[in-house]
Amino acid sequence: MTTQHLSPTSRTTPTRGRNRQVDDRRRLMALLSDALVAHLGIVAGTHPVVLPTAFAVDAAGPDDGGTLYLHGSVAAGWLVPALEQDVCVTVTELDGMVLARTGFHHSMNYRSAVVIGRPRQVTDLAERARALDLIVDHMMPGRAATLPAPTRKELAATAVLALPLAEASMKQRAGGASLEPGDLELTGWAGHVPLRRVADEPVTEDYVADPVPESVLRRVAELGRA
Amino acid sequence: MTTQHLSPTSRTTPTRGRNRQVDDRRRLMALLSDALVAHLGIVAGTHPVVLPTAFAVDAAGPDDGGTLYLHGSVAAGWLVPALEQDVCVTVTELDGMVLARTGFHHSMNYRSAVVIGRPRQVTDLAERARALDLIVDHMMPGRAATLPAPTRKELAATAVLALPLAEASMKQRAGGASLEPGDLELTGWAGHVPLRRVADEPVTEDYVADPVPESVLRRVAELGRA
Repeated sequence: MTTQHLSPTSRTTPTRGRNRQVDDRRRLMALLSDALVAHLGIVAGTHPVVLPTAFAVDAAGPDDGGTLYLHGSVAAGWLVPALEQDVCVTVTELDGMVLARTGFHHSMNYRSAVVIGRPRQVTDLAERARALDLIVDHMMPGRAATLPAPTRKELAATAVLALPLAEASMKQRAGGASLEPGDLELTGWAGHVPLRRVADEPVTEDYVADPVPESVLRRVAELGRA
Repeated sequence: MTTQHLSPTSRTTPTRGRNRQVDDRRRLMALLSDALVAHLGIVAGTHPVVLPTAFAVDAAGPDDGGTLYLHGSVAAGWLVPALEQDVCVTVTELDGMVLARTGFHHSMNYRSAVVIGRPRQVTDLAERARALDLIVDHMMPGRAATLPAPTRKELAATAVLALPLAEASMKQRAGGASLEPGDLELTGWAGHVPLRRVADEPVTEDYVADPVPESVLRRVAELGRA
């Protein structure tokens, strides 16, 4: 892993809001750890298509800058095109609503990472199994080790893509409403409303006799923490 | 508004998971009402770029199927390219984590809408002002009416794009873990963990004497409701 700073190319250098650009790999990894969904953008003929997808990160993965893994059905329409082009994976966490005294300065608090690169199909069986474990553990840490190994049929039905984390940028906004000098003469309330994701009580399947595992209860509690 | 059903073209017809496709405009509108962030995909030269953005919907807007509004700085790099091509706007709400007895059937509960179309720049001043109000009110219902009208300078700095909601598709997954016949012979816990977004206490700016408006407190309470 050679890349410590983000945005090594103009493609992932934001054209504006450079003050919001966070040149800090640690924060990128924290965002990728917090987020549960990525948006994958591919070009399908003459137009882009953006699809939500699960993902996982291996900071010590074999690709430059570490590896971002995506998986999908081998029957998914986006899969083959994605292997023949550069794609964009964007991961966004919404952290708050920003309510200013003017409509113009209304905004969102957020963290967002943009990763651009050519995906590699993971054909090595050991890496594929590890990537699928990482995707399960990304959602529910420690769970993969409690599950049976995937069957040959399951592995054959699942494609895994690896994207280098080398060409990545991150932007974030935090805090209160921006203020123009004149806005102090305005009246009315201004501030921000923090937003976060929480988990509710796990719902157990009818056919399950086991109690909810400690690891799941711990994750539910962690997601609820402000 | 002529389109009652979604996916009028092959571009927005999911290639698989047709059972998850919800052919129901009401649910599309409910998702677009719940979500606070959209992901805009454009083609930038040889690769796609996906960016998070605020948005609003006018079901009775002037475009076929109603209008989805996005706004951005006139200085944003994506703006001019977006006007010269078809773009994709994807809106996703994450509703839960699905934990099966096999890694293969781990999944997410979610709702996701994909809208593809050629954006129109909103030049009419009345429509632009209305769209900006809708974007503020999307985040905080009723707030736009309490704010001063945008200045000429603010309007000149803000571009508004309109996308027809005609070519849209929606997918969703809900409920518990999928089960293969053989999975009943496996052991271990399986179920799902509902996820939702909540708002914390509003944070008032230092220079504000007014109390937090009732409308903001109501929105905070609504977002917290399971």
